[in-house]
Amino acid sequence: MTDTPGTVAVIGAGTIGAAWAAFFALAGHPVRVADPDEGAAARLAAMLERARPVMAALGTLSGAPTQPQWCRDIAQAVPSAHFIQEALPENLALKQQAYRHIEAHARPEALLMSSSSGLLPSTLQQGLSHPERFLIAHPCNPAYLMPLVELVGGAQTAPEALDRAERFYQALGKQTIRLQREATGHLVNRLQAALWREAVHLVAEGYASVADVDRAVTQGLGARWTVCGPHTIFHLSGGAEGMAGFLQRLGPAIEAWWSDLGSPTLDATTCQRLIAQMDDAAAGRSPERMAAERDAHILRVLALGQPPAPPDV
Amino acid sequence: MTDTPGTVAVIGAGTIGAAWAAFFALAGHPVRVADPDEGAAARLAAMLERARPVMAALGTLSGAPTQPQWCRDIAQAVPSAHFIQEALPENLALKQQAYRHIEAHARPEALLMSSSSGLLPSTLQQGLSHPERFLIAHPCNPAYLMPLVELVGGAQTAPEALDRAERFYQALGKQTIRLQREATGHLVNRLQAALWREAVHLVAEGYASVADVDRAVTQGLGARWTVCGPHTIFHLSGGAEGMAGFLQRLGPAIEAWWSDLGSPTLDATTCQRLIAQMDDAAAGRSPERMAAERDAHILRVLALGQPPAPPDV
Repeated sequence: MTDTPGTVAVIGAGTIGAAWAAFFALAGHPVRVADPDEGAAARLAAMLERARPVMAALGTLSGAPTQPQWCRDIAQAVPSAHFIQEALPENLALKQQAYRHIEAHARPEALLMSSSSGLLPSTLQQGLSHPERFLIAHPCNPAYLMPLVELVGGAQTAPEALDRAERFYQALGKQTIRLQREATGHLVNRLQAALWREAVHLVAEGYASVADVDRAVTQGLGARWTVCGPHTIFHLSGGAEGMAGFLQRLGPAIEAWWSDLGSPTLDATTCQRLIAQMDDAAAGRSPERMAAERDAHILRVLALGQPPAPPDV
Repeated sequence: MTDTPGTVAVIGAGTIGAAWAAFFALAGHPVRVADPDEGAAARLAAMLERARPVMAALGTLSGAPTQPQWCRDIAQAVPSAHFIQEALPENLALKQQAYRHIEAHARPEALLMSSSSGLLPSTLQQGLSHPERFLIAHPCNPAYLMPLVELVGGAQTAPEALDRAERFYQALGKQTIRLQREATGHLVNRLQAALWREAVHLVAEGYASVADVDRAVTQGLGARWTVCGPHTIFHLSGGAEGMAGFLQRLGPAIEAWWSDLGSPTLDATTCQRLIAQMDDAAAGRSPERMAAERDAHILRVLALGQPPAPPDV
């Protein structure tokens, strides 16, 4: 980048916010983090140390990393910011209240980006003085590891704000996706929920164990999905005609499978079964240990890079 | 293995059968392949050369690989076989007709395993003289690359047949899953269909492009799914209480997302949109080239191995 890295204000130093703060700081941006909690500074420092070797391995660590500066309140954090990344709990009233404080102290041209995983931007931006600079920028957690950022504008978002956000994240090495219409859960969480719905059905109806359903994904489907999305998978099952050949030959079979998929509910029996079988599958490993194994493995997969992406997608 | 590798008969030398034949032969088993097509021998030879470096990289190549022997008919292929892997087109009548020929020539104790991706074993085994040794052993294609094999017994399958099949594939380095009840599409294809259903909905309703939906998976979800299945992903979002904590805090949100997921149909408009946007995403690359990129990348991911699996899952 030829410009001086812009200052980023991160609002909230929970799991999502602290990971964002570490990412922006280690990528070389001045970072100010607003959180009233006295433990925030220690959390930020710990996250910075966890993120550093990850970003070094991915090649996203700046030669001139910064340290996130902890601020007790929004009024201290946002005045100097060019980019504001909100990472508060998933609560509409809480977020909108914070936006009022942010707008009272921020430059009018600062981008205001929410990390919300499910709320709609048109709802979140209601009541803003400058709704045109508001958008959703939803990371995959942790933001210092996962490349994807989903960008979603609301009814009042200016296209230029989305363009600026796209340039900002792409310059940081992120892979951005821009939704053409807002949707509850954006893309990632909708796709994840769709897969889990059938995974729950298979366990609830006794077709297979939690461990075996998960292995169907980790041992069978997961490796494909690092290089081909669900559309491309079937495009490559269609022979030389690709998707057209696939739809012609296998479309009816897929529609029959769709009609046989389950619609489970998370009732008490199903929840007990999921909890008990997940406990078996974990085999004494704590969620913390499993999360560490997960992130270590994801890093190895991401460090492989990708086959070259075609232009203009 | 201390025993001499058992002889494997593969029925059908199409894409699935040829990949199985290459896998068994390069793993050191004597292999006889039945296919009336005169081009079968050339296809088998080509598949063997494609599979060899893949299995060398994965560590599944035997020190004493064999060459698959092509036979024009089932009567020549099956008499010496300990294991019979049927890989004919997905057509019930065709498969059942082949089973009659197989049973007329095979040893009664030979395992008869179908590669069917969607048919139910209870249906397929109707009319067999020895239905107890019949089961589904469904690979992820290509079988020389992908570790997963789904094992499914029908109403008349002996548990011992499933045990033997499990030992057979596990000795070859495969990851086996055993379904507790048969289901159309087993696990892998049901899960894949569930993900694609929402992927089609998002494109059909104009939320995002084919390319961006696919990138949500390849850049966001895929790397996670190589190490955590859909259940474990949410277990690790539940804090120290794991799945129980997740269900309590986020169960209602997930159920709300489920109710918002789409139920698309593959009508002409949707098919045209998928074909046109997939064409954009491919950006001039042929399906063949994309499939080669896919398999090369999958190999790199699988060659990383996995974090150690907990015992007894």
